[in-house]
Amino acid sequence: MATMRANVFHSKGKFGVAETPMPKAGYGQAVIRVTLTTICGTDLHIVRGEYQIKPGLVLGHEPVGVIAELGAGIAGYDIGDRVLVGAITPCGQCRACLSGHQAQCGQSAAGYQAIGGWRFGNTLDGAQAEYLLVPHAQANLAKIPAELTDEQVVLLSDIASTGFSGAESGGVRLGDAVAVFAQGPIGLCATIGARLMGAALIIAVDTDPLRLRMAVRMGADIVLDPKQTDVVADIKQLSGGGVDVAIEALGLQETFENALRCLRPGGTLSSLGVYSGKLHVPYDAFAAGIGDYRIVTTLCPGGKERMTRLMELVRHRRIDLAPLLTHRFSLENIAEAYDLFGRRGEGVLKVAVKP
Amino acid sequence: MATMRANVFHSKGKFGVAETPMPKAGYGQAVIRVTLTTICGTDLHIVRGEYQIKPGLVLGHEPVGVIAELGAGIAGYDIGDRVLVGAITPCGQCRACLSGHQAQCGQSAAGYQAIGGWRFGNTLDGAQAEYLLVPHAQANLAKIPAELTDEQVVLLSDIASTGFSGAESGGVRLGDAVAVFAQGPIGLCATIGARLMGAALIIAVDTDPLRLRMAVRMGADIVLDPKQTDVVADIKQLSGGGVDVAIEALGLQETFENALRCLRPGGTLSSLGVYSGKLHVPYDAFAAGIGDYRIVTTLCPGGKERMTRLMELVRHRRIDLAPLLTHRFSLENIAEAYDLFGRRGEGVLKVAVKP
Amino acid sequence: MATMRANVFHSKGKFGVAETPMPKAGYGQAVIRVTLTTICGTDLHIVRGEYQIKPGLVLGHEPVGVIAELGAGIAGYDIGDRVLVGAITPCGQCRACLSGHQAQCGQSAAGYQAIGGWRFGNTLDGAQAEYLLVPHAQANLAKIPAELTDEQVVLLSDIASTGFSGAESGGVRLGDAVAVFAQGPIGLCATIGARLMGAALIIAVDTDPLRLRMAVRMGADIVLDPKQTDVVADIKQLSGGGVDVAIEALGLQETFENALRCLRPGGTLSSLGVYSGKLHVPYDAFAAGIGDYRIVTTLCPGGKERMTRLMELVRHRRIDLAPLLTHRFSLENIAEAYDLFGRRGEGVLKVAVKP
Amino acid sequence: MATMRANVFHSKGKFGVAETPMPKAGYGQAVIRVTLTTICGTDLHIVRGEYQIKPGLVLGHEPVGVIAELGAGIAGYDIGDRVLVGAITPCGQCRACLSGHQAQCGQSAAGYQAIGGWRFGNTLDGAQAEYLLVPHAQANLAKIPAELTDEQVVLLSDIASTGFSGAESGGVRLGDAVAVFAQGPIGLCATIGARLMGAALIIAVDTDPLRLRMAVRMGADIVLDPKQTDVVADIKQLSGGGVDVAIEALGLQETFENALRCLRPGGTLSSLGVYSGKLHVPYDAFAAGIGDYRIVTTLCPGGKERMTRLMELVRHRRIDLAPLLTHRFSLENIAEAYDLFGRRGEGVLKVAVKP
Repeated sequence: MATMRANVFHSKGKFGVAETPMPKAGYGQAVIRVTLTTICGTDLHIVRGEYQIKPGLVLGHEPVGVIAELGAGIAGYDIGDRVLVGAITPCGQCRACLSGHQAQCGQSAAGYQAIGGWRFGNTLDGAQAEYLLVPHAQANLAKIPAELTDEQVVLLSDIASTGFSGAESGGVRLGDAVAVFAQGPIGLCATIGARLMGAALIIAVDTDPLRLRMAVRMGADIVLDPKQTDVVADIKQLSGGGVDVAIEALGLQETFENALRCLRPGGTLSSLGVYSGKLHVPYDAFAAGIGDYRIVTTLCPGGKERMTRLMELVRHRRIDLAPLLTHRFSLENIAEAYDLFGRRGEGVLKVAVKP
Repeated sequence: MATMRANVFHSKGKFGVAETPMPKAGYGQAVIRVTLTTICGTDLHIVRGEYQIKPGLVLGHEPVGVIAELGAGIAGYDIGDRVLVGAITPCGQCRACLSGHQAQCGQSAAGYQAIGGWRFGNTLDGAQAEYLLVPHAQANLAKIPAELTDEQVVLLSDIASTGFSGAESGGVRLGDAVAVFAQGPIGLCATIGARLMGAALIIAVDTDPLRLRMAVRMGADIVLDPKQTDVVADIKQLSGGGVDVAIEALGLQETFENALRCLRPGGTLSSLGVYSGKLHVPYDAFAAGIGDYRIVTTLCPGGKERMTRLMELVRHRRIDLAPLLTHRFSLENIAEAYDLFGRRGEGVLKVAVKP
Repeated sequence: MATMRANVFHSKGKFGVAETPMPKAGYGQAVIRVTLTTICGTDLHIVRGEYQIKPGLVLGHEPVGVIAELGAGIAGYDIGDRVLVGAITPCGQCRACLSGHQAQCGQSAAGYQAIGGWRFGNTLDGAQAEYLLVPHAQANLAKIPAELTDEQVVLLSDIASTGFSGAESGGVRLGDAVAVFAQGPIGLCATIGARLMGAALIIAVDTDPLRLRMAVRMGADIVLDPKQTDVVADIKQLSGGGVDVAIEALGLQETFENALRCLRPGGTLSSLGVYSGKLHVPYDAFAAGIGDYRIVTTLCPGGKERMTRLMELVRHRRIDLAPLLTHRFSLENIAEAYDLFGRRGEGVLKVAVKP
Repeated sequence: MATMRANVFHSKGKFGVAETPMPKAGYGQAVIRVTLTTICGTDLHIVRGEYQIKPGLVLGHEPVGVIAELGAGIAGYDIGDRVLVGAITPCGQCRACLSGHQAQCGQSAAGYQAIGGWRFGNTLDGAQAEYLLVPHAQANLAKIPAELTDEQVVLLSDIASTGFSGAESGGVRLGDAVAVFAQGPIGLCATIGARLMGAALIIAVDTDPLRLRMAVRMGADIVLDPKQTDVVADIKQLSGGGVDVAIEALGLQETFENALRCLRPGGTLSSLGVYSGKLHVPYDAFAAGIGDYRIVTTLCPGGKERMTRLMELVRHRRIDLAPLLTHRFSLENIAEAYDLFGRRGEGVLKVAVKP
C-alpha cells in the first residue's frame, strides 16, 4: 500500500508527522498533491483537546495543490491542474446546499445535523499532508490562474473567505461606519472586507499593538485598544452615534457585548467568533429587543465559485494577503509551527506549511 | 381654556380619567377626535411602574379618529376625514427615517437616542382621550376607506403592524416552516403574518388553551403547550429538522431560547418581545456561533403608508382581526378595562375603548 | 435490449408514441417509472417547430414517478420511493448553481451557455414515457409524502414553480397591489403565488372568460378583459396610482408593455413569458429610465428542495391545484391530448397523462 | 423687493444671468447662499429645448452653500452652517418616500405622478443663482464637515450619488465582474462605485480616449472603445462568459443593448441613462426572457442622509472627485461654461460655477 507523510492527530497534546496511507479517489472525488497549506486557530483548539475529532485523523483544512488523481464523474479538470480548495466543501446537492446554506452542508436523510460542510481535518483526513482526498470535487476544485502563486491564494481558503463574509453578512453599504472587534487573521480579513465593500469609516479594536499596526495597513482608519480606552464610548463618538455594522471576530463575551453596544439603532452585529459557554445579551445593550438590531452569524463560505471569486480579487490587485503570511515551515517541521503559532511568538499571524 | 376627558397617568398604580387641556395643532400637526382606541400590554407596564413615563401624561398609543383640526403645512386632508394613526409616528426627515429605520425616529442633532418613534403615551400625550395631537401629521394620517369600521382597523395601529413584522423581518418565504412562541395579541398577529406570507407549516406555542384555540382560528396548523410537551423536540420532529423562522412574541428567556433551539441551520429568529434583565444565548443553542443563524429584532413599523397597506389587507378580506377584540368599554370606564386586561379575565385578548 | 413506450419527437408536426430503449442509471443518476406527467405549452412550441430539439428525443418535462433504478453514488433513497422531479434539474456543482442561479445550470468548462438547467425533453429524453433517466439525481429526487396523490403534485414540477416565482422574484410584500397579465396555467399560478405571499389586491387580466373565472377561484380580487376595457387605466385607478408588482405570464409585446405601464414609481415588472422577436420598451412606459422600475425575469426554479417546499404547501392545504388539471389521457392517447391542449378545446387548462 | 443674480431659462436656446427676486423661507424651508454649483447634462437638454421646463425658472440642481435663512419648524441648524443639498429633495412624508422610493417623491393626494423628487431647476427655481430656496429643508440640508472644501463635495449632489447608485442598485458583490457603458461624469462615478463596492474586474467602455484615461484613473481595470473592437465579445471573453453587472450610463439603444448582451446568466443590467424614443430589447439579447436577468433603473438618491454618507467617503479619502472638476467659471460667465460643456471642449468633464 502506498503511503505518504501527514500530520496526524492522536489525542490531546499528541500529534505529529507520520507515514499514513495514500488516499484514492472514488467516484466524484479527486486527490491533490498538496503544495501549500497553513495552520488555523481551530487546529490549535483540536490539539489542545478543546474540540474533539477522531484520533488518527490528519489535521488541517486550507489546501493549495495540484490534481494528482481524478475519480470518475469529474469533468473539466486535468491531472496537473493547480487548484485551491475551500476549507468548507459543500456537496451542492443536499437540502442545506439547495437552500443557499452551503456552509451548513451535511444533512443526513433523517434530518439536519449542524456540523456544517467543514470536513477536512474534522470528519475527513485534512490538508497537512502530502496528498489530500477532495470530496464533491466537481463543486470544490477551483483552478488557480497561472499568474498567482500558492502563497497569494492559500489564505483565501478559510480566513479571507470567513473574514470577508463578516462584512458581507453584515450588509456593509457604501458610506457605512464599521467597527471590527479583534484583529487576528480573521478580524484583519474582516477589516479588509469592510474596506472592499465601501465602508467610509473602519475602526479596528485589539490589544496587540502589532496587530493594530497591521489593521491600519489593511485598511482601518482608526485603531482602539480596550486596555487604553473605553472603546464603546469612543466608537459612538467617532461614528456620530453608533456604527452601522459591528463585526465580532474573536468569540468572547466581551467583544460580543461591546460590538452590540456600539451599534446605531437599526445596526447589525455580524458575528464570526466561535463561542464557548454561555453568551449574555445584556438588556440595555440589546435595546430591550426593540432597537431594530440584527445579529447575524456566518460560517466560512466554501465551494469553487467562492474560491474563484476571491482569487479574482487577488489577481486584479484588490487585495494582498501576503503580509499576513509571516512564517514558513516544511511539513516535517510542522510541530515547530504549531508551537510558534500557539504561543503567538515572533509577531506570527499565519504560517505557510510546505509538504 | 378648552378641556377634554383623558386617561391620565399619575404614578405607579395611579391613573384615571380626568379633565385635561384640549390639544392645539401647531405647524405640521393635526388634532383628531378619537373615536376608538385600545389598551396595550405596554400600558400595563406603565401603570404598574415597570416602564417610566412622565406623570401627567395621557396614556395610550392606538388611535382611530376624525380630523378635528389641521395645522398649517398639511396638504391633502380635510376636517372630518376618518383616519388611522400608527402607534409609531416617524417624522420621515431625520437620519433614522432617511436610513429606512422609521421606527427608530428620534435622532437629536447631537446623535441618536434609541427611544424610537414611539411618542403617544410615552413622550407625548396619548390616545386614551377625547382628542389627540398627531405630530408629523403629513407622514402619519392614514385615511380609512369608507367601507371599513373603526373596530376593523384599530388593531392595525400596533399589534398587527408589530405581529406581521415578525414574519416580515424573519423573511418568511413560500413553503417555510415557522414556529411562533406565545399567542397573545402580538403572537397571534405573528401567526397571521406567517400565514399571509406563505408559510407552509405554522406551529403556535402557548400555555393558554383559549389562546391556542384562537391560534388555530388565525392560521396555525399545529399548537403546542410547553407544559404538556417538549416543544423544541416536537418542533424539530414536525419540521423535519428545524424551522426556517421562529418568532418570539413574549420577551422571556425561555421563549427566546426555545425559539433559537428549534431553528434549522441557517434559520432566523425574529424577535418581537421586549426583554428585561439579562438574556442568555446558550452556546449549544447558538451552534457556537457558526450555524449561520440570524437574530433580528423589530419595533412596530408606523407611518401612514404602513397603515394604508394594512387597511388594504382588511378591505380585501385577507385578514379579519375582529375576533381579537373581545371586550368593549367607554373611556369613562377604562379603569375596569385595565383591570380585566391586566388579570387576563374572561378570555380577554384586546379591548375596544370608545371615548 | 429492453424497451419502453415513449412519446418521441421526429420533426415539425411529427411525433408519437413508439418503442424506445429503456434508460439505464449511470453514476449519480436514477431511473424512475413515470406514473404521471403532463403537457406544457413548451411542448406545443416544439411539435410546431417553433423551438428546436434533436429528432428522436422523448418529449415532456414534468414527471411524477417511482424509483426503478438507482445509480451508484446516490444516498438516502430506495427503489420504490415515490418522487417528484422538477422540470429543471440543476447539478448543484457548477458555477451557475454555486452562484445561486440553479435554473441556469449548464456552464461548460469554457464558459456559460444560456441553455439553463432545462434538460428533460430538451437536451435529454423527457417524461412522456414509461421510464425516465434523472440526471444529478441526488439533487433532484423529491420524495412525495404518502398522503399526497400524483395528481396533487404533478403541476408543481413546472407551472406552479414558475408561476409562484413570478410573485417571488417580483418581491411581493404584505399589502401590495399586484396585476397578473394572462391567466393560462402559469399566470393562474402567478395569481396563486401573489395571494400566497400576502398581496392585498390582485387584478388578473385575460380575454378568456373561463380563465378569468378560474382566476377568481385561485385568488384574484378583480378580473379585467383587455377586449372590454382599458386595462392600464383601470389598474391605475383601482390601485390608487399603479401596482407594486406586475407579473407578465404570456410573452407578448402587448402584455409586457401593459405590465410596465401599470406600475407605480419604484414598481417591479416580473416577467415569466418566453418572448420571440423584438421587444419594445416604450420611452414613456419606462419613465425614460428614471422611474426606479425593475424588470426581473425568472426561469422555473428546480431541484428537490424547491419541490419539497412546494409539496409542503399542498400537504398543509395552502394550495389546491386540482382544478387546473381538467383532462386525463393515457400515454398511448397522448396525440389526442396534444390536439385538445393545442387548440384549447373544452376549457382545457392542463392534462394529466398516465403511462 | 430684494433681488439676486441668477441664470434664468427663457426658451429654447435662450437663457442668461439676470436680476431675479430673492427667495424667502416659508415654514419647513431654508434659503442658502450658494457658494458653488455646476452644470449638468440635463441642463443642456433644457436649454436645447429637449426637456421642457417653465420659462422664467432658474436653472441648476447641484448646490453647495451657506444657510442664510431658516423658516420656522427647522431644528438643528444655524444661520451660517455650510451645507450640501442633493439634486433630489425628498419630503420624507409622502407615499413614495415612506415606501423607500424617496427619489420618486411627489405623489399628489390624487395619486402618483412620475415626476420624482427632482425639483431644483425643474419645478422650482434652481441652484445657478446667488440664493436658493430649499424645500423640505429638515430632510435635505446636510452639514459639510469643516475639513472638506466646496469643490470636494459639489459633485456628490447629483453625479456621484447617481453614478454610485448604478453599482448599488446593480447589487455589485465582492469579486464581481462589472462593465460600465459610457464614461461621462455619471459613468465615471459608476466606475468608482463598482470599485468601492468590491468588484474584482471593471471594464469601462467609451469612444473618447480622454475619458477612457480618466476611467483607468478612477478604477477601471480594462478600457474598451466600441469603435476599435467588438466590446460584447471582448467583455464575454475577459469575464469568462459574461459580467455579473453591466451599468448603462448614457441612455442610448446601443449602450443598453450591449450592456444586456454582455451579462452572464442571472446577471443584472443597472440602467442610469435617460432614454428617449423607443428602446428595443432584442429577443436573443434578453435570452427570450428566461436568462434570470434583471434590469433595474435608478434615479439619483437624495436627502441629507445620502449626502452625509457620501461626504464621509470623501472625508475618509475613499474617493477623490477633484479630477472630474476640470474648469471653473463665475456665475456671471456661466454662458461660456454652458458653451464649453455643451461642445465638450478642452477635455471638460464638469465645471465649477461660483456665484
